[in-house]
Amino acid sequence: MTQLRLALAQVDPTVGDLAGNAEIVVQRMHEAAAAGAHLVAFPEMMLTGYPVEDLALRPAFQRASRQAVVALGQRLAVEGLGELPCVVGFLDSRGDPAGLVTERGDLDPLGRPRGEPRNAAAVLHRGVLAGSYTKHHLPNYGVFDEARYFVPGSERTVVRVRGVDVALAICEDLWQDGGPVAEVRAAGAGLLLVINGSPYERNKDDVRRELCARRAAEAGCVLAYVNLVGGQDELVFDGDSLVVAQTGEVLARAAQFEQTLLTVDLELPLSHTDDGVVVLSADPAPAYDAGAGSVAERLDDDAEVYGALVLGLRDYVRKNGFASVVLGLSGGIDSALVAAIAVDALGADQVYGVSLPSRYSSQHSKGDAQELARRTGLHLRTVPIAAMVQAYLSALPLTGLAEENLQARVRGTTLMAISNQEGHLVLATGNKSELAVGYSTIYGDAVGGFAPIKDVPKTAVWALSRWRNQQAERDEQTPPIPPNSIDKAPSAELAPGQLDTDSLPDYPILDALLDDYVEKDRGAAQLVAGGHDRALVERVLMLTDGAEYKRRQYPPGTKISARNFGRDRRLPITSRWREPSP
Amino acid sequence: MTQLRLALAQVDPTVGDLAGNAEIVVQRMHEAAAAGAHLVAFPEMMLTGYPVEDLALRPAFQRASRQAVVALGQRLAVEGLGELPCVVGFLDSRGDPAGLVTERGDLDPLGRPRGEPRNAAAVLHRGVLAGSYTKHHLPNYGVFDEARYFVPGSERTVVRVRGVDVALAICEDLWQDGGPVAEVRAAGAGLLLVINGSPYERNKDDVRRELCARRAAEAGCVLAYVNLVGGQDELVFDGDSLVVAQTGEVLARAAQFEQTLLTVDLELPLSHTDDGVVVLSADPAPAYDAGAGSVAERLDDDAEVYGALVLGLRDYVRKNGFASVVLGLSGGIDSALVAAIAVDALGADQVYGVSLPSRYSSQHSKGDAQELARRTGLHLRTVPIAAMVQAYLSALPLTGLAEENLQARVRGTTLMAISNQEGHLVLATGNKSELAVGYSTIYGDAVGGFAPIKDVPKTAVWALSRWRNQQAERDEQTPPIPPNSIDKAPSAELAPGQLDTDSLPDYPILDALLDDYVEKDRGAAQLVAGGHDRALVERVLMLTDGAEYKRRQYPPGTKISARNFGRDRRLPITSRWREPSP
Repeated sequence: MTQLRLALAQVDPTVGDLAGNAEIVVQRMHEAAAAGAHLVAFPEMMLTGYPVEDLALRPAFQRASRQAVVALGQRLAVEGLGELPCVVGFLDSRGDPAGLVTERGDLDPLGRPRGEPRNAAAVLHRGVLAGSYTKHHLPNYGVFDEARYFVPGSERTVVRVRGVDVALAICEDLWQDGGPVAEVRAAGAGLLLVINGSPYERNKDDVRRELCARRAAEAGCVLAYVNLVGGQDELVFDGDSLVVAQTGEVLARAAQFEQTLLTVDLELPLSHTDDGVVVLSADPAPAYDAGAGSVAERLDDDAEVYGALVLGLRDYVRKNGFASVVLGLSGGIDSALVAAIAVDALGADQVYGVSLPSRYSSQHSKGDAQELARRTGLHLRTVPIAAMVQAYLSALPLTGLAEENLQARVRGTTLMAISNQEGHLVLATGNKSELAVGYSTIYGDAVGGFAPIKDVPKTAVWALSRWRNQQAERDEQTPPIPPNSIDKAPSAELAPGQLDTDSLPDYPILDALLDDYVEKDRGAAQLVAGGHDRALVERVLMLTDGAEYKRRQYPPGTKISARNFGRDRRLPITSRWREPSP
Repeated sequence: MTQLRLALAQVDPTVGDLAGNAEIVVQRMHEAAAAGAHLVAFPEMMLTGYPVEDLALRPAFQRASRQAVVALGQRLAVEGLGELPCVVGFLDSRGDPAGLVTERGDLDPLGRPRGEPRNAAAVLHRGVLAGSYTKHHLPNYGVFDEARYFVPGSERTVVRVRGVDVALAICEDLWQDGGPVAEVRAAGAGLLLVINGSPYERNKDDVRRELCARRAAEAGCVLAYVNLVGGQDELVFDGDSLVVAQTGEVLARAAQFEQTLLTVDLELPLSHTDDGVVVLSADPAPAYDAGAGSVAERLDDDAEVYGALVLGLRDYVRKNGFASVVLGLSGGIDSALVAAIAVDALGADQVYGVSLPSRYSSQHSKGDAQELARRTGLHLRTVPIAAMVQAYLSALPLTGLAEENLQARVRGTTLMAISNQEGHLVLATGNKSELAVGYSTIYGDAVGGFAPIKDVPKTAVWALSRWRNQQAERDEQTPPIPPNSIDKAPSAELAPGQLDTDSLPDYPILDALLDDYVEKDRGAAQLVAGGHDRALVERVLMLTDGAEYKRRQYPPGTKISARNFGRDRRLPITSRWREPSP
C-alpha cells in the first residue's frame, strides 16, 4: 500500500468557452499543487462544457477542442505544473485512434459525423497528452442524445501515478452493468476514477452514493467520482463529487451546488502488473501525514431543489451576458417565489419587479407585491395596464377568454418593453402544473428568456416558499415571501372574482395525477386503477395533451424532475393519440 | 417468370390516430382489390403515423398499436380482403421476437424502453399477422432520433406471394450499404419491397431514384418504394413512390404531394428456394393483360417547394382541428407569399388577413395589402395600431429598438386576440434569413401556431412568389401576389424610412453566406476562403449564434432544407463558442 493525495475539481465551465474553461483548469491546478495533490481530476467535457449538442459535429469546433487540449498540456508545463498529472474531459475527434490530429472533420452525405467525435478524458502530464480514454456507454434517453454525437470507445485506459494504477471511466460507464467498470478488478487497478456530467434530479435519494459503493465493491478498489456543478440551459449539475471505499465507506464528499476542490488522502495498493498501463510516475509518493477527508452533509429535499433553482437561474443569467432580471409581480405565490430565487441568485439590486394591476386586480395583490419588495429589497414599479387594455378593446370586440388573454399579453408586452429599454432578462413565472394543463397565456405570462420554476409543481411552489421563509427565520433574517401570498387562494385575476379552482381541481389532487401521468408515464387505465377520479383523468389528460404547442414555445427553465417538459419529454404537437378511456 | 400486380398506397396517416389510419388501410385495400392487385404496400409506421416521438416509449401506446395491427388483420378478412396480402408499417413492441403480445411495456430506471419498441412492417393475410419485419438501420442524425426509440432488427423477412419471393426492408435499410438489401440477392428474392417515411428536402436532385436504381441492381431484382405523403409538424413527406427495375428503368412513379394508389404490373421470377420463406400463396397468378405503369413527371424546383409548403400548412391546420387561419398583412412579400400559400392550402374563404398600420406604415403598404386581398379573395380587415402603441408610450418611456419592438408586439397581441375571439390559427410570416440573424421580434411578428416559410430564405421567397404568379398567368388566372410587393425594397416599417438593408446586407449576399454557414456547417475560415467578406462573416455569425433563444421559442414550420432551424440543428442557447476569426 502507498499514499496518494487526490484532488477532485468540482467546477463550473461554460459551453463553448474553450479558453475560459482552460483557465479554470489552470487555476485549480495551481490550487491543487499548493495543496500537495498527486493527481487532479476535472469533470466530463470540462474543456468544452456540457452538453455542447450539435457543436460536437461542427468541424471547426472539433478542431478547436483538439488544439485546446494540446495547448492546455503545454501551458500547465510552462506554469510549472507539468509534474502534476490531471484528467480532463474534452471533445476528441480522432479519425484514427492512434493519432490525435486529423482533418477528417466533415459530415457524410447523411449528416453523420465523419470526424468521429468522442466524449473523452485526456491525461495531461509533462506538457503532453500522455493518454486518453473514450466513453464506452453513450446515454441516449431522457435529456441525453449521445448516440447522435459520439462514437463509443471500447478500450480500457489505466495510468500509473506514483506507483498506483488508476483506471478511467466516464459517467454512463458507471451506470451500465458490465463495460469498463467490470474490467477494473481484472486489471488490478488501485483506483477507479470516474469523471461525470450528471444533471441534478430531485427525489433520487442517494442513488449516486449507492451506485458508487456498489461499483467500488465490484471493482475491488476505491472509486472517485467528480461531477460538474452549474447551470446549462435547462440542466443544472449539482456537483456532489465523492470518494467511496470498496467497503462502501464514504471517504470524502463535496457540497452540492458549490464550486470546490475536494482533496482526499488515500491508502492504495501499489501496482502489480504492467499490462497496457501508461506509466506517468512509478515511484510511490514519500510518506506524509494523511488528513481525514471532509464529508459534506447532503441537503434536505427542499434545500436541494431551492439550491438547484438558484444556481440554474444565476448561471443562465451570467453565462448569457445579463446582469439583471425583470419580472411581473402579481402578489401571487409563483411570482413571489421566482423573485425570492432571483434575489438569492443575483442580489436584490439586480432584480426589477413590476406590478401590473388591471381593473380585476384585488387590493391585496398590489399590497402583497409591495410587501414582497419591502421584504427582499428588490426594485418595484407600478404600471397599470387598464389604459392599454382599453385601447385594444376600443379597436376589437373581445369577450371571455380573448379578453382574459389580452390582459396577460399586455403585461407580457410591457415587461418586454422594459427589458428592451433597460437590458434586463425577463423571467417567466409559470409553474409546472400550469404548463402541463395549459393554464397560461402564450405570449402573455409565458414571455421570458428563462422560466425558473417551470419544472416545479404548484404544491412544491408552496412548500419551497414556506421552506425559504423558515430558513430566513432560522437565520434571523426577514422571510422574503409575504405570508399572505402563501396563504391566499390562487387566482389569475383575469376576470372578476376568478379563482384557479374555477377551472382546475385542487392542486394537491392535480399534482398527484400529473406526477403519475407525466413523470411515471402511466396510461389512463392505470391512473384510474391507481385511485384517480375517472372524469378528472379524462379531463386532465385532454388538457395536457392539448397544450403541447404552448410548451414548445415556452422559455427554458431549470430541470429538477425526472421528466421535465423539454428534452426529457418529446411529443409531437400534431397528435390524435388520446389515452383510451378505462 | 410470372406476373404480379403490385399496389403502392401513397397515403397520409395522422400521428396517434390508430383507428383513422386503419380506416385508410381498409379503404385503400378495397380500392386495390377492385384494381386486381395481388399485393399491397403501405408506408413506414402507417398505423401510428410518423414520427410518433416519445409515444413510442409509452406502454399504453405500445399496447394499443399491437392491438390495432391484430384488429386490422381481422377486419380485412371480415371485409372480404383476407386473400389480398398487405404490408403495413406499425409500432411493434415484442419483448420476445417470437410472440407479438407481451406486457413488458414499462421503462427501466433510466427511462429506456423495456417493451422493446420496434419500427416494423406487418404482413397481414387471411386475418392474421402472417409475418413481420423489424427495421435494421435506425437513423439518428438530422431530424431523426430512432436510436432513442427503437431496438434494431437483425432478421431477414421474405414472404412468398403468388409464387414470387418478396423481401422486405424499411427506409434507412435502403440507404445503408450492407444490411438487408445486400442479402436480397443471396436470398434469391424476386422483389424487394421497401416501405418508407422519407421527408421532403429540396435540392436533392433525384437522389431517391438513383439510390433505388443502384440497390435494385445490387439486389438483382425489381425494387418497389412506397413513401408517406403529408405533413407532420415540421416535416412534410412528398410521396414520390416508385418502382425501379434492376436495369435502372423506372417502371412506375407516383406524383409528389398527392395521395394515390400506384398500381404496376410486374414480370417477376418464380421462387426457387424455400429457406426461411413465409409462404402466403405458392401458386402463380393466372396470366392477364398487363398494363404499362404510370410514371409521373417530377416537379421542378419551385413547384416542388411550393407544393411542400402548401401541403405542410394544410395538414398542420387540418390535423390540429382548425379550419381557418389569420395573419398580419404588411404589404410586404413575406406575408403576401404566406397568404398565397394559405389560400392554396385552405381556400380564400378560410384565410383572414389583418392590415395593422402604424404611423410608420407607408401608403403603399396599406394599398398592397388591399391589392393582395382583391387578387386572392381572402378576408381583409384593418386595425390601426397607433392608439394601442400610444397607450404604452404614455405609460413607459420607450425609445429606439424598444419602441420598434413594441409596434411588432402590439400587432402580435392583436392577431392573438382575433384568434382567441374567432378561432383561427395564427400564422407567423417570418422567413429563414430573418430567423437566422434574429431580424424579428419575439412575441411580435414571431407569434403564431405555425410559420409556413420559416425554412425559406428571403431570396427563395421572391423566387417562389414570382413562380406562383407565373403559374397563375400560365393558367389564365389572377396572379395572387401584387407585383409591387415583389419589386419594392424590403422594410420592417418600424421606424421612419427604415429599410432591411440599413441593418442587413443585400439578401442574395446574406443568403449565400447563411447557406454555407447553417446548411453546410462551414467554419469562419472556410467561409472567408470561399469568398465571403471577412467583416460580414464575423457580423452574420455573431448575429446568428446570438439569436438561438429567439429560434427556440419560434413556432414550427415546414422543413424544406437539408438543415432547418428545429430538429435538424440543435444548439445550446447558452454558448460562448464563436467561430475563430480567420
